[in-house]
Amino acid sequence: MKVGIIGAGQLGRMLVMAGYPLGLRFEMFDPNPRACGAQVAPLTTAAFDDWQALAALADRVDLVTFEFENVPVATMEFLAALVDVFPRPPVLKTAQDRLREKECFRKLDIPTPDYLVVDRREDLTAAVASLGLPAVLKTRCLGYDGKGQVILRRPGDLDAAWTALGTAPLILEALIPFEREVSLVAARGGDGGMAFYPLAENTHRDGILRLSLACVADPMQLKAEEYTRRVLEHFAYVGVLAFEFFQVGDRLVANEIAPRVHNSGHWSIEGAETCQFANHLRAILGWPLGAPDLWGQSAMINFIGELPPLAPLLKYPYLHYHAYGKSPAPGRKVGHATLRLPSSANLPAALADLFFQKDLGLEDLQLTVGEKKGIQPG
Amino acid sequence: MKVGIIGAGQLGRMLVMAGYPLGLRFEMFDPNPRACGAQVAPLTTAAFDDWQALAALADRVDLVTFEFENVPVATMEFLAALVDVFPRPPVLKTAQDRLREKECFRKLDIPTPDYLVVDRREDLTAAVASLGLPAVLKTRCLGYDGKGQVILRRPGDLDAAWTALGTAPLILEALIPFEREVSLVAARGGDGGMAFYPLAENTHRDGILRLSLACVADPMQLKAEEYTRRVLEHFAYVGVLAFEFFQVGDRLVANEIAPRVHNSGHWSIEGAETCQFANHLRAILGWPLGAPDLWGQSAMINFIGELPPLAPLLKYPYLHYHAYGKSPAPGRKVGHATLRLPSSANLPAALADLFFQKDLGLEDLQLTVGEKKGIQPG
Repeated sequence: MKVGIIGAGQLGRMLVMAGYPLGLRFEMFDPNPRACGAQVAPLTTAAFDDWQALAALADRVDLVTFEFENVPVATMEFLAALVDVFPRPPVLKTAQDRLREKECFRKLDIPTPDYLVVDRREDLTAAVASLGLPAVLKTRCLGYDGKGQVILRRPGDLDAAWTALGTAPLILEALIPFEREVSLVAARGGDGGMAFYPLAENTHRDGILRLSLACVADPMQLKAEEYTRRVLEHFAYVGVLAFEFFQVGDRLVANEIAPRVHNSGHWSIEGAETCQFANHLRAILGWPLGAPDLWGQSAMINFIGELPPLAPLLKYPYLHYHAYGKSPAPGRKVGHATLRLPSSANLPAALADLFFQKDLGLEDLQLTVGEKKGIQPG
Repeated sequence: MKVGIIGAGQLGRMLVMAGYPLGLRFEMFDPNPRACGAQVAPLTTAAFDDWQALAALADRVDLVTFEFENVPVATMEFLAALVDVFPRPPVLKTAQDRLREKECFRKLDIPTPDYLVVDRREDLTAAVASLGLPAVLKTRCLGYDGKGQVILRRPGDLDAAWTALGTAPLILEALIPFEREVSLVAARGGDGGMAFYPLAENTHRDGILRLSLACVADPMQLKAEEYTRRVLEHFAYVGVLAFEFFQVGDRLVANEIAPRVHNSGHWSIEGAETCQFANHLRAILGWPLGAPDLWGQSAMINFIGELPPLAPLLKYPYLHYHAYGKSPAPGRKVGHATLRLPSSANLPAALADLFFQKDLGLEDLQLTVGEKKGIQPG
């Protein structure tokens, strides 16, 4: 059985690694010839509108999935006419447009921040008058890792924000004072069966995910599952999907969905009975889903820009290292590590200890030690 | 960093999969163009005495290891003159020859079965007269999975055994009435640091390993570690090595060493903090070894000949499935599954339940339920 993957970044790379033990073979497709997935599976380098190359791929594989949610919908629709494609393309249309996405959440009775469409400069003034400040101006499409967003705190911020983003369709969202950011990774099989991973509690730095804690028996778990179930069933979704929320009191407010495996689920490689990558493959192949249950307790730390020195990391107890085979670049996700501890151990203390280690480049996470409930230096 | 692997069977394949998260790249070398490792990394197909192809490989990689202990010593010596090779070739010479191997064990004061060299037909008669029957006649070289061995039970068996094996140098070993077969997988780094996995208790069928149980706090652990340490230090070994023993009362009698990752260590992929494949790579790269400690309790079942049907296997709780991407053939190792349970669970009962499942083709292991201490139907 051969699976085609559109996009050959680290998510595709980890899908491939989870698929080899299942006896699967892969082909990847990415416009970037240096995409890191090419180190682990054959890569076709071609543009997303190279219909000939796409048709040739469809011909060589049994089904196609994607690891990059900004692949053009037209690319996936073209492939879907030739070969099975999961998740099916319509969910991409929604996930790629913040307006469409929020309208979908509202239709499914899932809370969202207040928002207004901003197409012209005068819409921005009116939206700020209506929603108040602070607020966040976002491009409707192609935003990720904090890109395509500007926070407006004072009326004087509007012009600069418009200059930065005004060439694209926008929405203005009320900036809600949340207590924490959480995400739920879930899988749905072709038979409608679902598996929900434990909620992850996420910490960002400069708009980029740095730390995900897998939550044990979190009080918001069932609410997150209920909202996620609505989205999965609405799209008759097949595969893994991640749903990001803001927690405000005992409410979950929808931020966004990602119709793919997700950075906040990487801890599951070691920390869950079945990892998100294996469950995505099981789902799209029509195979039984695996249990998403926790093994011990886990936290994942992203390495941004460059990898820390190897030896101290490999010596660190209970730490599992993942390099993505990428060259260093500012803001680039180049690897991650998962700290997986026995259930009886003190995870907050171990994390604090790790962040205070010299030479690991994790000093900027020391703040989380005070920031987060339950994380105290050991 | 790029690692060359001589041999591209399932052991090489699993080395590659353990190495990708460490950011490593690989090239494999095997005379068989359909070797299953070729599905996960680039393969050079050439003979083990194709010096030009070997030199070209050495030129493209940073170091070389092997996954197949019957690679000619001359091949590894040729490579070692061009590039770092670990484990270093001399251990191969010993491991490839049962006589040399047993002489080494004796020198290191490690018990072995009584044995005698058999080069001519009359040596066989004399050896049987000396060691008695039953005994086992073995080729000194190239034996594996029960091949190259004949058990002699009665004097009338000698002629047929000689006809079957007499063209090769042989040894006759006393057949010792052992209680169980165990193996120790160990890693030694370039700095002399060592990691010992928990003993595995092994069950064979038709000379082929079928079941390995990772032993929790086994009373023979320290003795096995001591014997293995002697071998590792004798060779200034770098990499993973497996040592197979027969247990007779509270004695361990050496059977053989394998200077490579080993089938009885596959459970470590899920069942240990660091798997044998990752530790082999860490050792040969001069990186710190990872902890070999158990996570929960594990048992590994080999799939021989053909893979069982997928759906019931994937539904089976706590079961981790590994297909090697090989075509079916009698006696061929085509995959394995590891049952990894929480420490509090009843592993013997879960194993018995698995063996009694219809359609999994594990009926021949039902006997182990009665055979083994501690394994009772659930």
